[in-house]
Amino acid sequence: MRALSWPNQSVKGQVTATIHQMITCSAPGKVYLFGEHAVVYGQPAIACAVERRVFTSVKLLASGEITVSAMGKIQNCHSTEFRYICQAVQTFKKRTKNDFGAEITIKSELPPSQGLGSSAAVTVSTIKALSECLGIGLRDQEIAGMGHQVEHAIQGRASPADTFVSATGGVVFIEGTKTSHLMHPDVPIIIGATGITRSTGDVINSVARMKRDYPEIINNIMSTIGDITRLGERKLIGGDINNVGELMNINQGLLESIGVGDIMLDKLIYRARDEGALGAKMTGAGRGGCMFAIAREGNVNAIAEALAREGAQVFITAFSNAGLRVE
Amino acid sequence: MRALSWPNQSVKGQVTATIHQMITCSAPGKVYLFGEHAVVYGQPAIACAVERRVFTSVKLLASGEITVSAMGKIQNCHSTEFRYICQAVQTFKKRTKNDFGAEITIKSELPPSQGLGSSAAVTVSTIKALSECLGIGLRDQEIAGMGHQVEHAIQGRASPADTFVSATGGVVFIEGTKTSHLMHPDVPIIIGATGITRSTGDVINSVARMKRDYPEIINNIMSTIGDITRLGERKLIGGDINNVGELMNINQGLLESIGVGDIMLDKLIYRARDEGALGAKMTGAGRGGCMFAIAREGNVNAIAEALAREGAQVFITAFSNAGLRVE
Repeated sequence: MRALSWPNQSVKGQVTATIHQMITCSAPGKVYLFGEHAVVYGQPAIACAVERRVFTSVKLLASGEITVSAMGKIQNCHSTEFRYICQAVQTFKKRTKNDFGAEITIKSELPPSQGLGSSAAVTVSTIKALSECLGIGLRDQEIAGMGHQVEHAIQGRASPADTFVSATGGVVFIEGTKTSHLMHPDVPIIIGATGITRSTGDVINSVARMKRDYPEIINNIMSTIGDITRLGERKLIGGDINNVGELMNINQGLLESIGVGDIMLDKLIYRARDEGALGAKMTGAGRGGCMFAIAREGNVNAIAEALAREGAQVFITAFSNAGLRVE
Repeated sequence: MRALSWPNQSVKGQVTATIHQMITCSAPGKVYLFGEHAVVYGQPAIACAVERRVFTSVKLLASGEITVSAMGKIQNCHSTEFRYICQAVQTFKKRTKNDFGAEITIKSELPPSQGLGSSAAVTVSTIKALSECLGIGLRDQEIAGMGHQVEHAIQGRASPADTFVSATGGVVFIEGTKTSHLMHPDVPIIIGATGITRSTGDVINSVARMKRDYPEIINNIMSTIGDITRLGERKLIGGDINNVGELMNINQGLLESIGVGDIMLDKLIYRARDEGALGAKMTGAGRGGCMFAIAREGNVNAIAEALAREGAQVFITAFSNAGLRVE
């Protein structure tokens, strides 16, 4: 690994045109409209970027030290905090054969560990910001791939969808290694975060255990979730948003059946439906984390208020076509 | 229809050996261990009699008037109350070509309209008590068939399983017109009644609408419920009560997916599971009514107390081998 010559140039004030001392990049969070868990078993899923972002600012330094400032803390990468960011830096250094120091500052509109893809967003926005600073110009899809390596190194297993959606934005149909972007529906999203944190790995392992114990039944459920995703894709293309909502509701029941539900999520989901949501479901691994609803404009405030009364942290947002962005 | 000669004999005090002036019969309520709703679409179900009963006392009278005393009210059959009892009397009279008067008194351990089969129990216990009074000696299966006619006349459509299970007791595997009794599991049942009443017809119609709109998906879900019922049968036979409980939980999610869930039911179901239930699900049409849990003896009180704290009416009971019974 060669040391980057830039920091010395910086000291001398001789920055080249393609290298920037400081860059802020952002990446969106996401929700699963359909198919989480089933995607682990080869079924398709539809994940959607949302207009809540993680902003990563990178300031290149002369020294090789990496410091990370986030959530009111400042740590270097010898600590066990900020693992995604530090792993992203290491992966980036290895891939680009560069060495450098940096001050990395994170500002997030996403609650962490609540199934909204904040780890994917922080990972890809860190890689993007490093790439932009160093003038390397990695493509977003390449960043998504590096981001997936980072998540895989930390989690043991990870869906490539998470970093792909955060990097490229939009509504993404994922099946195996195939991904395609769909038009996003023009409806508001109301997200309710329970604040309950569970280990994604534990939840995935418990589903795997059920699949071993009841293979035919769980396989049927996974394949029905796959059918919902495929029909959901057609309904999205046709603009049949009422059907999209109802398919979300059916998908939610199937997630309950594989044991990843949670009573706080259910309370929020039922409240949202009672207040006129077109559809409401959990997103991500489950047993906590977030639910979200889609709704007509006129119902948004009533839904948001109802979720807040149930004790959720509430975000009113929208589907986002924008993935990684230089701010 | 010939008038029964007995009332005159009664006036003269010349009662024959086979005719009784007053008889009390009882019939049990039931829960669906697996398969409600799917049974409407030709899938199998397992319904179980429980040790909570309806007691029907019939006192034959000289006059042709029928009076019914139940839930603190006394009405004749010209009123619109007590429809199942009055329809049962009418069906019985027609089938047996007898006419008679009677005072019918109902005492019930089952909350009405909560999905525990109180209408089936009151219907078959009324027919049984009439049959015993008149010395006709209808077999329980014949009473179940007449009871089904009564339910069909009132509800428009009805599952023959309801009156069959109440009449014959036990744990009954039902598939189309085929029924077979299984050994019942020796575990306590904790029932939680929400007190919420919904029209069974409306709930069944809403499932039928979803099946029209999403035929492939809903058919898959129904057939997966059928698979759960068949596997549940094998686990019951094998005495694998932990698996029976987990299959109940999977079935519950699938019921949620077809839109028959309810948040009060969910709260009770999650509380029961949190307190150590082996399995917990709703029973019957849903959107209210009852849930039940099966549990090891040591967890029963904690579950019952937790359900009561959530506002449910709670019954601790057991599976019952006894169907219709002369008291």
